[in-house]
Amino acid sequence: MPTDFASLRAQFDLPKGVIYLDGNSLGPLPKAAAARVARTITDEWGQMLITGWNKAGWMAQPSNIGDRIARLIGAEAGSVVMGDTLSIKVYQALASALEMNPTRRVILSDIGNFPSDLYMADGLCRTLGQGYTLKTVAPEAVLDAIDDTIAVTMITEVDYRTGRKHDMQAITERAHQHGALTVWDLAHSAGALPVHLAQCNADFAVGCTYKYLNSGPGGPAFIYVAPRHQETARPALSGWLGHAAPFAFDLDYTPGAGIERMRVGTPPVLQLAALEASLDIWDQADMDDVRAQSITLTDRFIAGVEAACPTLTLASPRDGKQRGSQASFRHPEGYAIMQACIAQGVIGDFRAPDILRFGFTPLYTSEQDVDSAITILAKIMETSLWDRPEYKTRAKVT
Amino acid sequence: MPTDFASLRAQFDLPKGVIYLDGNSLGPLPKAAAARVARTITDEWGQMLITGWNKAGWMAQPSNIGDRIARLIGAEAGSVVMGDTLSIKVYQALASALEMNPTRRVILSDIGNFPSDLYMADGLCRTLGQGYTLKTVAPEAVLDAIDDTIAVTMITEVDYRTGRKHDMQAITERAHQHGALTVWDLAHSAGALPVHLAQCNADFAVGCTYKYLNSGPGGPAFIYVAPRHQETARPALSGWLGHAAPFAFDLDYTPGAGIERMRVGTPPVLQLAALEASLDIWDQADMDDVRAQSITLTDRFIAGVEAACPTLTLASPRDGKQRGSQASFRHPEGYAIMQACIAQGVIGDFRAPDILRFGFTPLYTSEQDVDSAITILAKIMETSLWDRPEYKTRAKVT
Repeated sequence: MPTDFASLRAQFDLPKGVIYLDGNSLGPLPKAAAARVARTITDEWGQMLITGWNKAGWMAQPSNIGDRIARLIGAEAGSVVMGDTLSIKVYQALASALEMNPTRRVILSDIGNFPSDLYMADGLCRTLGQGYTLKTVAPEAVLDAIDDTIAVTMITEVDYRTGRKHDMQAITERAHQHGALTVWDLAHSAGALPVHLAQCNADFAVGCTYKYLNSGPGGPAFIYVAPRHQETARPALSGWLGHAAPFAFDLDYTPGAGIERMRVGTPPVLQLAALEASLDIWDQADMDDVRAQSITLTDRFIAGVEAACPTLTLASPRDGKQRGSQASFRHPEGYAIMQACIAQGVIGDFRAPDILRFGFTPLYTSEQDVDSAITILAKIMETSLWDRPEYKTRAKVT
Repeated sequence: MPTDFASLRAQFDLPKGVIYLDGNSLGPLPKAAAARVARTITDEWGQMLITGWNKAGWMAQPSNIGDRIARLIGAEAGSVVMGDTLSIKVYQALASALEMNPTRRVILSDIGNFPSDLYMADGLCRTLGQGYTLKTVAPEAVLDAIDDTIAVTMITEVDYRTGRKHDMQAITERAHQHGALTVWDLAHSAGALPVHLAQCNADFAVGCTYKYLNSGPGGPAFIYVAPRHQETARPALSGWLGHAAPFAFDLDYTPGAGIERMRVGTPPVLQLAALEASLDIWDQADMDDVRAQSITLTDRFIAGVEAACPTLTLASPRDGKQRGSQASFRHPEGYAIMQACIAQGVIGDFRAPDILRFGFTPLYTSEQDVDSAITILAKIMETSLWDRPEYKTRAKVT
């Protein structure tokens, strides 16, 4: 049965008068989330107190939810676990991968990667010392830069600014040919397009849930470790909930079985409850249907904007298969233009230095939304509505 | 005006028929928390969407809440920030402290420390290589073990099992005399007793909020860095929200000003909202009053149990000033006895190998609760009620 997008959309609480094209930064609220979290607070925390860890299943939540996310990213059951933030999970995956490839010292990434990944890799290299370095190349140069010196590649599959999509299959293959391991960041992939971690033979992957997976502000991250590595990957962030027997309170660390060892501290139960409400919607979606509709919406937006706004330059790949679920345009006054869009009810976001970024998420974005957004953006550009002081003053956070 | 404990107690949602002596594992639900989190979900996430980061103040929450916690732990304003889990914060504090003391290689801790702290230190030493080691001694031997080889002490002020309290002032002084830095874990101190980080000249401190600070399951941790170290402490976990300009998306990491650099990834906004509801109660409490009443309650419990249960052996210091806000007893059948207590409505917890642990938190525990708990425990011991198969079968988590 094809995915019923109208039914999915009805399960989100979208403010009136807003066309929300920023679900790639923070997904909107599933209608069921408030009640789901309230139940966790009142019935579980309030009534079960400490016994909720067992009775309400809080302790098992990170693995159970991990399995639900596994389906969306082509991962094996028992290979994904929730916790921490994406930055922490990047550090964790990199540290394990480097330790598994001890004769090499180079992490390869690209300058289109999300800066926090680069920062975390940098911090890890500094902590490791001994010549560990992060090497970055242009996104297009990644494949050729993989040689026998690379210990691990750290690539975000979909570029957060342009939406350009790396070829996971090709990069993973070449990495393995040259004896390197792979860490894939799925921040702009999970819930945006089909991912085939197992099929691509990926080694490690990490991702966040507050974007396309709609878990709400500060929702937890996930980490994937290929089953073949789970007993050899040793956690650098060796927290008690990754221990083989957390409640034995041994003085020495023994890593837990399988993916459980990638847990660190106490899981964020309230945030995980919100995520569950979102995954109940995701359970009704077929990822291939989502992808097809995402390309339809994004193609439609690009065609409309290019026809109506000649001064905006497409920053995303024109071929839908080459990009994630977003369309980005460049303009020197990008910041002010985006502020004008937001003031007119079209919420996208600005990414320095000059990128207007619009996310398209078929779960709640319709073709009519796309057409309305084009009309509003066209009017802003035609009338130079953006050229006002109030749109040019930069807020601390956008 | 003295703290009005009856009024504070009325602000918690405690299940009927339960005497909750496990707030040192998971604090109970503040009545206002459900509505506070619901508002964050419905009005902020739902209506403001991405703009909530500014409009609802989510981005500033980790520092604003950090300042509220600073008051409870004797810390300077601007020296505490929220995020991650306690295990992650231990790693972060240790890594910075070690880097600030580069000629030394030894972390000193004690075998009474919470195992996750030891595990994280071990993982960090393994990552650092180059001879870094974790040395552990008996809790009573810590002071004498501080010599010129120690880079940093990592001590949990109050022992999670026995409640024995370390002398923060003396240990910090001796550490500084010998050129060592200090990392204090306040898991069983914050909200349990007055802490004087600034006055003791502490260097780093970390803690969690789901125990005495009642933030709910998976509530975030905090980290303290003394103002004198804030511009030199370099984060190993160098995430984008600790960057000087997170939204400039520079490719290179530049640590942010002051305590902000200890932020890593996106803060858990829903968990932080629950914590705010608890801190609204804490704002009405004077820490010295809490301490005095805690000692009254705990002394009363110890005297009552010792009189009524001769086979239980006190595992906590008898002198109230030498212990945190808990009373622990040893018994070879401790696990079964605690299960019987829980079945009878007295919730404490068991800590391997033989510790029955009871937490006393004047915010919601009354003298009548203490007397009822003694009566129930006495009956369990007199009648050997614990000696049943169903109490001896160990659940996965206690």
